[in-house]
Formats: sequence, C-alpha cells, structure tokens
Amino acid sequence: MPADPLGAFCRDNPVSLPGAPAGPLKGRRFAVKDVFEIAGTPTGFGHPAWLRTHAPATATASTVARLLAAGADLVGRTISDELCYSLSGENVHFGTPRNPAAPGRIPGGSSAGSAAAVAGGLADIALGTDCGGSVRVPASYCGIYGIRPTHGRVATDGVLPFTESFDVVGWFARDPALLAQTGALLLGGTPAPAPIRRLLLAPALFARAEATARAALLAAVPRVAAHVAEVVEIADDFAVLDAWRVTFQTVQAAEIWATLGPWIAAEQPEFGPGIKDRFAAAATVTPQAEAAARARMAEIRATLRAMLPPGDALLLPSAPRIAPLCGTPASEVEVAYRNAAMALLCLAGLGGLPQLSLPLAEAEGCPVGLSLLGGAGADEALLALAARV
Amino acid sequence: MPADPLGAFCRDNPVSLPGAPAGPLKGRRFAVKDVFEIAGTPTGFGHPAWLRTHAPATATASTVARLLAAGADLVGRTISDELCYSLSGENVHFGTPRNPAAPGRIPGGSSAGSAAAVAGGLADIALGTDCGGSVRVPASYCGIYGIRPTHGRVATDGVLPFTESFDVVGWFARDPALLAQTGALLLGGTPAPAPIRRLLLAPALFARAEATARAALLAAVPRVAAHVAEVVEIADDFAVLDAWRVTFQTVQAAEIWATLGPWIAAEQPEFGPGIKDRFAAAATVTPQAEAAARARMAEIRATLRAMLPPGDALLLPSAPRIAPLCGTPASEVEVAYRNAAMALLCLAGLGGLPQLSLPLAEAEGCPVGLSLLGGAGADEALLALAARV
Repeated sequence: MPADPLGAFCRDNPVSLPGAPAGPLKGRRFAVKDVFEIAGTPTGFGHPAWLRTHAPATATASTVARLLAAGADLVGRTISDELCYSLSGENVHFGTPRNPAAPGRIPGGSSAGSAAAVAGGLADIALGTDCGGSVRVPASYCGIYGIRPTHGRVATDGVLPFTESFDVVGWFARDPALLAQTGALLLGGTPAPAPIRRLLLAPALFARAEATARAALLAAVPRVAAHVAEVVEIADDFAVLDAWRVTFQTVQAAEIWATLGPWIAAEQPEFGPGIKDRFAAAATVTPQAEAAARARMAEIRATLRAMLPPGDALLLPSAPRIAPLCGTPASEVEVAYRNAAMALLCLAGLGGLPQLSLPLAEAEGCPVGLSLLGGAGADEALLALAARV
Repeated sequence: MPADPLGAFCRDNPVSLPGAPAGPLKGRRFAVKDVFEIAGTPTGFGHPAWLRTHAPATATASTVARLLAAGADLVGRTISDELCYSLSGENVHFGTPRNPAAPGRIPGGSSAGSAAAVAGGLADIALGTDCGGSVRVPASYCGIYGIRPTHGRVATDGVLPFTESFDVVGWFARDPALLAQTGALLLGGTPAPAPIRRLLLAPALFARAEATARAALLAAVPRVAAHVAEVVEIADDFAVLDAWRVTFQTVQAAEIWATLGPWIAAEQPEFGPGIKDRFAAAATVTPQAEAAARARMAEIRATLRAMLPPGDALLLPSAPRIAPLCGTPASEVEVAYRNAAMALLCLAGLGGLPQLSLPLAEAEGCPVGLSLLGGAGADEALLALAARV
C-alpha cells in the first residue's frame, strides 16, 4: 500500500500485486474498490461484518486480471460505502476518504476511495462499480473522469453482486486518454460504434442542478460542442423524471433486498444512519410494487433508447451540485441530495446506457461533472469524444 | 439464410450480415439464438407475441459484433424455446429444429436452433444462452461442443434478460479448437488460468444418468484423463443434489417472473404445455421462499467454489440421457426428464461456474455429452483441455 494521506485504501485488508513485465499499461498504478475479488484475499464490501463472515476469494475478477496482464501494478483496495448503498462516500466503520479536489467535502460514493485515490494521484486508474451513480457521483465530486459502461458489456465475474439489473464495473482516470485506453482493454476490442456527431441538450435536465453548478456546467458545454457537428436543444420538459427515479429506486431496492436481505437478516450488521434506513425500506417493497416498476422500466428503457440513436449523446449534469461538506446531516446528504441526484442518475440505469462524466466545470471552487449519456454500445464513442475535448 | 433442411433458423425473421474483410474467423459462418439483438431488426425470444410487441433493436449485442469484427459471417437467427423456459427445443409456434445427430429425437433447448445448425453443418459456430442448461443440454443431445462460461465473464449487452443471477452467453462448435478460438475472442484475452491438472470423478453424479448413458460416459473418461496428471475419485454422495436443484429452481423461477411476469400478465401469450405450467408456477414463489433460497444459494456457492481450486475440474454427465424421442409426452420431457437433468445442471448455475460439454459418448446410437465443471475463471483452461482431447 502506498502512503495514503487521503485514507482512500482499506488499511486492515491491503492488497498489492505487480503487473505483467510488459504491456500497454506498464508503469501505471491502479486501485480497485473493495468489491472486486482477488484470489487468496477476503473482500470487505465496505463493512467489517461482511469481511469477518466471508472466506477469501478463490479467483480474481477478470477485470482486475486484465489490467494486471496489461502491465499495470495493483497498489491497493479502496474504501467503499457500506454494501455500496450510498452516494456519499462516508463510511462509519472504515473512515471517509478525503476529497483532494474539495477539501472538507465528502468524496461521493460508493466508489469513494477509488475516486479519491485517482484524484489525489495515489493511482492512475481505479476500478469502481456503478449501480445508481457510484462511479459518476464521486467522479463529479472529485474532479476526475469516470465512466459507467453499457450494462452487460464489461465482465462482472468476481464482483460482489448488488443489483443484477443495474450493476456495472466502471473506471476512473485523471487523463481522458488513459480512461479510453483502459476502456479498450475492459471493453474488449469490439469495433468502435458510430462517433458522436450530435449532442442533445435538454434545459430541463440542467434545471435540476443548483444555480451555481448549472451556470458552470452550461458554460462548459461549448468545450464539448466544439468537437461534434451539431448541438440540438430538445424541448422535452422531463416532467417524468421524478416518476422515473421512483421506478428505478423501487426495482433497485427490491433487487438489493433479494441479494443482501438474507445476510442482513442473519447478521444484523450495524449501518450508518441513511444506509440503515434505506435497507429497512428496501425490505418493504412488495412483489406487486416491484412487478409494476419493472413493467414501467421496460417502457422507459424503450423510450430512452429511441431518444439516443447511434451518433447522438445527451448532455446532462453528472450531479446536481458540488460535493456537500463533511458533517452535513444524513437527512440532507442521504435523502434530499440523494433524491435530487437520482433523478438525473436514473437515466443510465433505466436505459442500461453508458454515461461518462467529464471534470469540466467548477462552482464555488469545487468540481462538478458534465456528463455524456450515449446509446447502448456507444461506450467507445463517448471515450473518444472525451479524449478529444 | 442458407438452405435450412433442419428448420433451425427463424424463417419469418431472418438475418444475415457479412463479417469484416479479414480476421481470425474469416470464412467461418455463425448463427445466433433468437435472443441476441441485432440493430435494425426485431428479436423474437422464441414467441410470436414477443416479436409482435417489441420494436427493432437499436444496437447489436457486442458478442455478435465481436464475431463479425473477427471476420465471421452471420448466417442466421436460430429458433429458441419460448422465452427460453425449456430444455427440450420444442417450439409450438416456430417449429422444432431437427436433431441431425439423433433423427426423430428432440434437439434440446433452449438454444435449440443454434445447436442443430452447428451439428448439421449449417454454421461453424453458434451463440446461445444458458441459464439452467440451455447450451449444455442441446450440445449433449446434438453431439457437439458447447460451453457455459463463468457467470459475468462474457458480455451480455443486447441479450434479452431472463434470470439475472444465472444468464450467460455460451457458444457451440463441432471443432474444439474453434470453440477455444471463439472463446479467446469472447472472453477477451485475460491471461489463461491454471491449466487443468486434476479431474475429480464422483460416482454419485454418474449414478444420476440412465444405465446406457452412464456406461458410455464412464468409458469416455480415460480419453480426457489421458491429458491431465491425475484423476481422483471423490466419495461425496451428493445426497444434497435434489435440494440444490430445488434451490436453483426457486431462485430461477422468482427471477424469471420478476423479469417476464409483467409482460406475460399484460399479453397473456399462448404457451406450449410444460412451459405454460412452469410460468404459472413461477408466479407463485413467495418472497419468503425466494429469500430462503438465496441464502442457501450463497452457502452452496461457497461449497462448490471450495471444491474446485485452480487446476481442478469435476467430471459429470452433461445430461442424464440421450435426447428423448419427438412426441414424448410433455409430462416426461418437461417434468421428469427436466428435473433429472436439472439436478446435474444446477451445479454450474449455483456456483456461477464454467462448464464445457464434450461429445465423447454415444448410447443407443445417439450422442450424450461428458462435462467438465471448472472453478470460477477456469474457462480458458477447460477450452484448452477440450482442444487437447
């Protein structure tokens, strides 16, 4: 483990492995969120009770193996929110990684330590996971690049399951060219999709951001627009956004409880305040509510996919605000801020679509990310555009 | 669409695409099950009502794109069982593909047309999906190689979802070297796991096969054993196998109903007899039963993974018998035979483990497959061993 002034790494469960002697990532250091299995070592899932009750992994996640094979050195396992069920990055058990881009503010989560480690230069690349926003939010708060790929495109073996419908492996870098190079390895060399030629800008989505963040994000749009053929403003008022958020959160909660409920019921682990309440609520989703939400989700997915043909990408704020201050009450961070962010974040999850957050804006001296949401399979096109900006 | 004397392809919804001008699969023909999305064309999921109620796909599954980029020509879309919920290959709407290796017998399913097309030489490679056995069973019945990879290792974007915990993309070939070459493309070039050095042989698993199939399968074991350092007989009586099967089927049914229940409830599509009953039963799994089954599944997964360290593979019958005759009552094929097969097939699903079926045995003049079940991530090791046999 390298020196860790940010508290980004899992102190009690460190890991490091040398990369292959040669390869395209030789000389690069990478870190992985505490949900990736590494053979012979236990995985913590952001909770000491999980760490205590699970045996060491017998296989290494193939995403981790792929970066090692490309020559990158694994320098550490990074702190995750408890069982990934938060966007804040505040872990009451293992500590909250410091946000080097916004001192005194939370790093965002749940891939908190991965984002902090990259933002602070402790690693060049980090792997995270994103169900509801767990790569996009910390990328936005920490001022780095982060991508959530198309659902199903990147291998998830050896990654602790959370929600089967939404989980994806994502990754962070400070350098967009390195983000794209990492993508070429993880996405596996399928031919590039159509380049992004047109950006869709919906004022209604930017209206979801706080005023200072909104102004900074809109001011950054021309930096991306300069690299495409046209920008089209779309009139859609996205009045449905809060209903879509609830649909997402219902399916998410039902799947989380299906995956983790048995363990939680058996172990009764302690949780931080907002997380504890969210798990308790997840246990109450009825099969009827889940089924209705799944039916709506299928319709929403079709709507979103029709909105994003090859060559188009939708611009939106990665998060509605800069990182909240450490110590902000959980009722705000874990409820009000979370729901405001989820209204924007739910689009990628519901659509199974790729989203890339670019660190192009700053408000009150703190970063906020501008996002590109692409059609299914547009991952490489988003990465190529980000690298050109 | 090529001439199709087997009825393997979707006549009403054909597709063909030329591969890239050059690549490692140049000159090879491949086919894909009717669950892989191909941009601009609709997907049928084995059911005319599904085909009618869904718009054309906007993106192509990256697995399909990868084979096209490697130079292979896509020659057709193959018939699937209705919504994949059968192991028989009998489709009352689109027809039952003929089994070229066992005339008069069913091909096995649900990747029925893919297996038939490869067995009959209409394609060199075919993509299928395997939740409960939908690659392994038709590979066994049709006398070809088929692999179910480690859960999560191969991209599933653009593949219609069925059960999120068990679905994997698998593939078929007549030639084990081509099966391995296809695997190198789809598995994406992660470094090879430890080669298989030791085979575990549990007589209790072979005892699950019918007498003639069992004798033929045991007689084939030395052909594999000749290529490893040792074979160890394990005494485990697998008395738990039927309980494990029920655990698998409970989680499977709950996830299938969560995924497909809303559409089935809205559309009321007609189903073949065994399939109709199974969907009706899937709707009745209680949240309590599902949660209990998930908790047991976590324990079973740990047990299975501990049983299969790197370098080990478990031998077992791919199916307990040769393909049943066409016209065998659904009560046998869809209930009795299905449950007997599921007791063997559930191991890979519960463990998230790779399994490769080798066409090394014959009983009553018909093929039956011998399977290798590997540890998590052992995919390339299984493929390499099969190519050596």
